[in-house]
Amino acid sequence: MSRAAIVGASGYIGGELLRLLLGHPEVEVAAATSTRLAGKRVDGVHPNLRSLTDLVFIPPERLDQYDVLFLAVPHKESMGRLAHYAQLAKLLVDLTGDFRLADPEVFERYYGVPHSAPDQLGTFVRGLPESHREELRGADRISVPGCMATAAILAVWPLAVDGLITGEVSVDARTGSSGSGTSAVQGNLHAERSGVLRVYAPYGHRHEAEISQATGMPVRMTATGIDAVRGVQVLCRVRLADGVDERAVRACYQRHYTDEPFVRVVAQRRGHYRLPEPKILVGSNFCDVGFAVDGSRALLVGALDNLVKGGAGGAVQAMNVRQGWPERLGLEFPGLHPV
Amino acid sequence: MSRAAIVGASGYIGGELLRLLLGHPEVEVAAATSTRLAGKRVDGVHPNLRSLTDLVFIPPERLDQYDVLFLAVPHKESMGRLAHYAQLAKLLVDLTGDFRLADPEVFERYYGVPHSAPDQLGTFVRGLPESHREELRGADRISVPGCMATAAILAVWPLAVDGLITGEVSVDARTGSSGSGTSAVQGNLHAERSGVLRVYAPYGHRHEAEISQATGMPVRMTATGIDAVRGVQVLCRVRLADGVDERAVRACYQRHYTDEPFVRVVAQRRGHYRLPEPKILVGSNFCDVGFAVDGSRALLVGALDNLVKGGAGGAVQAMNVRQGWPERLGLEFPGLHPV
Amino acid sequence: MSRAAIVGASGYIGGELLRLLLGHPEVEVAAATSTRLAGKRVDGVHPNLRSLTDLVFIPPERLDQYDVLFLAVPHKESMGRLAHYAQLAKLLVDLTGDFRLADPEVFERYYGVPHSAPDQLGTFVRGLPESHREELRGADRISVPGCMATAAILAVWPLAVDGLITGEVSVDARTGSSGSGTSAVQGNLHAERSGVLRVYAPYGHRHEAEISQATGMPVRMTATGIDAVRGVQVLCRVRLADGVDERAVRACYQRHYTDEPFVRVVAQRRGHYRLPEPKILVGSNFCDVGFAVDGSRALLVGALDNLVKGGAGGAVQAMNVRQGWPERLGLEFPGLHPV
Amino acid sequence: MSRAAIVGASGYIGGELLRLLLGHPEVEVAAATSTRLAGKRVDGVHPNLRSLTDLVFIPPERLDQYDVLFLAVPHKESMGRLAHYAQLAKLLVDLTGDFRLADPEVFERYYGVPHSAPDQLGTFVRGLPESHREELRGADRISVPGCMATAAILAVWPLAVDGLITGEVSVDARTGSSGSGTSAVQGNLHAERSGVLRVYAPYGHRHEAEISQATGMPVRMTATGIDAVRGVQVLCRVRLADGVDERAVRACYQRHYTDEPFVRVVAQRRGHYRLPEPKILVGSNFCDVGFAVDGSRALLVGALDNLVKGGAGGAVQAMNVRQGWPERLGLEFPGLHPV
Repeated sequence: MSRAAIVGASGYIGGELLRLLLGHPEVEVAAATSTRLAGKRVDGVHPNLRSLTDLVFIPPERLDQYDVLFLAVPHKESMGRLAHYAQLAKLLVDLTGDFRLADPEVFERYYGVPHSAPDQLGTFVRGLPESHREELRGADRISVPGCMATAAILAVWPLAVDGLITGEVSVDARTGSSGSGTSAVQGNLHAERSGVLRVYAPYGHRHEAEISQATGMPVRMTATGIDAVRGVQVLCRVRLADGVDERAVRACYQRHYTDEPFVRVVAQRRGHYRLPEPKILVGSNFCDVGFAVDGSRALLVGALDNLVKGGAGGAVQAMNVRQGWPERLGLEFPGLHPV
Repeated sequence: MSRAAIVGASGYIGGELLRLLLGHPEVEVAAATSTRLAGKRVDGVHPNLRSLTDLVFIPPERLDQYDVLFLAVPHKESMGRLAHYAQLAKLLVDLTGDFRLADPEVFERYYGVPHSAPDQLGTFVRGLPESHREELRGADRISVPGCMATAAILAVWPLAVDGLITGEVSVDARTGSSGSGTSAVQGNLHAERSGVLRVYAPYGHRHEAEISQATGMPVRMTATGIDAVRGVQVLCRVRLADGVDERAVRACYQRHYTDEPFVRVVAQRRGHYRLPEPKILVGSNFCDVGFAVDGSRALLVGALDNLVKGGAGGAVQAMNVRQGWPERLGLEFPGLHPV
Repeated sequence: MSRAAIVGASGYIGGELLRLLLGHPEVEVAAATSTRLAGKRVDGVHPNLRSLTDLVFIPPERLDQYDVLFLAVPHKESMGRLAHYAQLAKLLVDLTGDFRLADPEVFERYYGVPHSAPDQLGTFVRGLPESHREELRGADRISVPGCMATAAILAVWPLAVDGLITGEVSVDARTGSSGSGTSAVQGNLHAERSGVLRVYAPYGHRHEAEISQATGMPVRMTATGIDAVRGVQVLCRVRLADGVDERAVRACYQRHYTDEPFVRVVAQRRGHYRLPEPKILVGSNFCDVGFAVDGSRALLVGALDNLVKGGAGGAVQAMNVRQGWPERLGLEFPGLHPV
Repeated sequence: MSRAAIVGASGYIGGELLRLLLGHPEVEVAAATSTRLAGKRVDGVHPNLRSLTDLVFIPPERLDQYDVLFLAVPHKESMGRLAHYAQLAKLLVDLTGDFRLADPEVFERYYGVPHSAPDQLGTFVRGLPESHREELRGADRISVPGCMATAAILAVWPLAVDGLITGEVSVDARTGSSGSGTSAVQGNLHAERSGVLRVYAPYGHRHEAEISQATGMPVRMTATGIDAVRGVQVLCRVRLADGVDERAVRACYQRHYTDEPFVRVVAQRRGHYRLPEPKILVGSNFCDVGFAVDGSRALLVGALDNLVKGGAGGAVQAMNVRQGWPERLGLEFPGLHPV
């Protein structure tokens, strides 16, 4: 049993980590921190955990030593307190954006502040087993990619790395409201957020930089908030290299993903679910990837649950790889239909 | 043309008053106040009003003299500043809960504070033309009933006043999120409020007292928040007096409502819309009332849009009556299907 | 390993049985029938099962011998073909309404047709471990209660059996669209069903009879279709017997449910989730039960996922009891928050 | 008063025509046809029209002579019966896709059947006053563009006609469920359609051809079904011509749209509604158009209610122009917030 602590456990990602780790056969949840809710029961804010745990939030100051520390804190807090966190556990799994980008200049451009620990950027391994499984086995610091970035990387990266696409990738990302976190701003009120198609980032969303870094392609991304709590879908428009046809695209995906436990290639000729649909992935760790070829262009589609494969589940999967455990451990829930 | 001012115009009821009054042929919107947004354009917070008005919020201190003053302020603010508001306009239309209950003791029991102007309680006429049309014609102070109360009163009051029901009325009310206003508390976040069936008031909701006062019956009411922005539906369980059957119930409703411009009796044998359904009333000033008789019991159903007939629309209708204008003026939108 | 077959596996209950049984460590899904889709892959209609199974629907005529047969067929089909099904497996788990009511006259009143196998009504045990655990251990025929009935029975039955309530129980039930099944009628179209509060059964819903039978109390029930795919919530108004107070109600629930693996008592003083909320139960086998006492009355609230605890999950739980397996087997998913 | 008849009045577009025309001061609705529902009251299927009309559906065979005939029939039926319809009224307003495309070869490619009246294609004027106001004044046959096409044309056409953009237009369209009509197919069931992001047309949607024809640009379009009943939003990615910057784009839109009654330019620096949002347009005839410039690229955004500006409202607006009436007549509803 590994002893795990979750820093920032009252947020939505923190709550999802609790759900997954409380059901994980190799992990004991030893601590869950919340500055605001210290002393309160964990199931008071995460009511789905009732009867599953008697855990009480502790203030972050009361953290001591653990095998794994999950950082589900606000962006910019991981880099500011890295040295401190590193003393608390051998394995750090960071879910913020702080260590996702290798280049501090790119970080500053997308996050609006200079990176406070630029020399540490290289010490983190991307928490994406599909592309970094071997590196993860020896990693002590893992940085989990962003939710929309994960979906887009898994859709684009195989074709990029195999040289099947050229030019710029145009990403149209749609995302549910849980990605906005628990802070109560007016734009996130139900009355304002219900039924929206809110183009909140026409260009230059932070995840754009991650996708570009991971695929080596220039990327432009638009993000739209939709009326869902969980769920991310990305539509990636790419140009195929000379001679690449539908069969080549399909073969490329199969080459990369046939043995992947959590990526499914979904590209059928007909049916309501012929392309990746996030609604049936709620709660599951799958990322579904599909495509449609149109002459020399292709539409690549990725879908996932932003709190699972695009967050807490991706973190647990990366931990499983790092610890040498079966990769599916604690992540078996398949998703629901209808839902 | 009457010059109207809206106090508290940045909230949802205030915005709906703006929408209705900007389209009202007898009214000029002379002022819209907001402490927080003074100096900002009205259509910045109410984007549906773009191109319809260049109005800018003023601070409440800059109010001067108007023909009508609509009070869309937080509960407890109307009674605290009544003398001040009364100097600004001959006609006051209050949309808070402050002057809905005639008995200051009942007020204190349901609102948790003593009434600060108990001697003024009797100076307001209930803004419900269906039951108080004649009194409204001479009224200078109008108190608009609560949204759920309006639906329940219109469903129960005809049978109560005609002596067709006895005993306690049990009300099961369902309400959308716009009734919670614009304050950004965590429970109103989209991620928390989406998909809910939140029994937030198992007993003792404030509107209970209004329904009881208006019908003269003892009332117990449960309120559930549902996943809608607009819309109220009430299910009222009553016991029929001896000898009262379905025909008598129908006749009673028809007696009261046949000539009413904004109440429709909806009680069919079959169909998806056989009983009042708030979804088709979004934006409209109708209150649909229906029923099903089961031996000596009946289920009375009322539905409306809480921001229109249950708020701003009810206020405009009452003003129309008071001013001697056609009652439908500015309130003609019939609602949509499908929606 | 027990070999199980699902008759009627293309419907929503059938699909949920597939999801649960494919992940059940003691069960092998040996057959899934569909008349209409015979020869097609199961994951073509249940896309959440992609990569989990290569199963193909067979026509019901091709069924042979199994350890367990789950009947997820339309109402009235189980009773018509009971003798046939009984030859195919020692253990029958019926999810239709055919064998839920013990009295054929009551059946006829609520289902509109005479029962075609009235002498077999007594051979089924109610698939509700909370009230029938001992009887289930030796049962060869199990009848799973209806979804709304399950929620209401679990909310009312402890108080009824312990003599804490008197008089009639008034049930206000709300239900999602998956309960209407896969038949494409216009009233179930998204455009018509989205956003509804459809009072489709003001009185006399079939589940009324089940609740009455299980609790021994007279029951009247109203059913409202709401804008959710999964989820049932029941509000049950009861009258407390003399001297019964909040403490007694709480103690009664604790007495019955403290050791229950799938019933949680949820009755808090505050919070958005103070009373049972179906949204956080999606996919889980929990039934949350709560209450609020108001003098001599109480509001009892039950919530569950109609396809899990109110259907396929309840069936699997009953099977687990019958087979002597740990009761939680295959049913560990706790539900999500936010969702 | 003009006498109007609606052919196909039981569908969603037909119902919306009824709503608008019943409130139109210059029009009398003289007939509404439905083959299936002949003899039934119109408000039985369009419950929002209760108390507004006593109209009863007639079978299409009973049509006689009218001033205006609105064709809200299934695609391919207008062209098949054009000669017949032309005898019934001087002015035909066609809401099908039959006469939207000028080139019969393009029609056949996108609709999959040869056009049955290719010589009549040139006799229809596009029912889009923003681009065809003058032609409409003398038109006896009007073809209303498709819902997604209308949004995209209004977003792209000003820049195209003024030479501000080059290359291919990539359109990402999102649409609600009412666009699928009233036919009860399984994919449109609430349980399947709720919460979707269904990429149902990755390439080659019919509206693609309309947009291309109207703008003179090559167009590729992806269509996604979303969880809304009403509402269309299009994101159009374009390349700006040399030297075109944000100021030029804004000036172009203002040049074309400042005096337009139903197009608003929405392109703000901040706010939840900084770009066109269909949710606040429900029921209104506005098409909001906005943009964001990113170097030599721009994202053009259009939003509307598919049943109003993208259907029945566009038809009424075109009729108003044709008849020489004020263009806003019967179309004044501004939309709601929040909703």
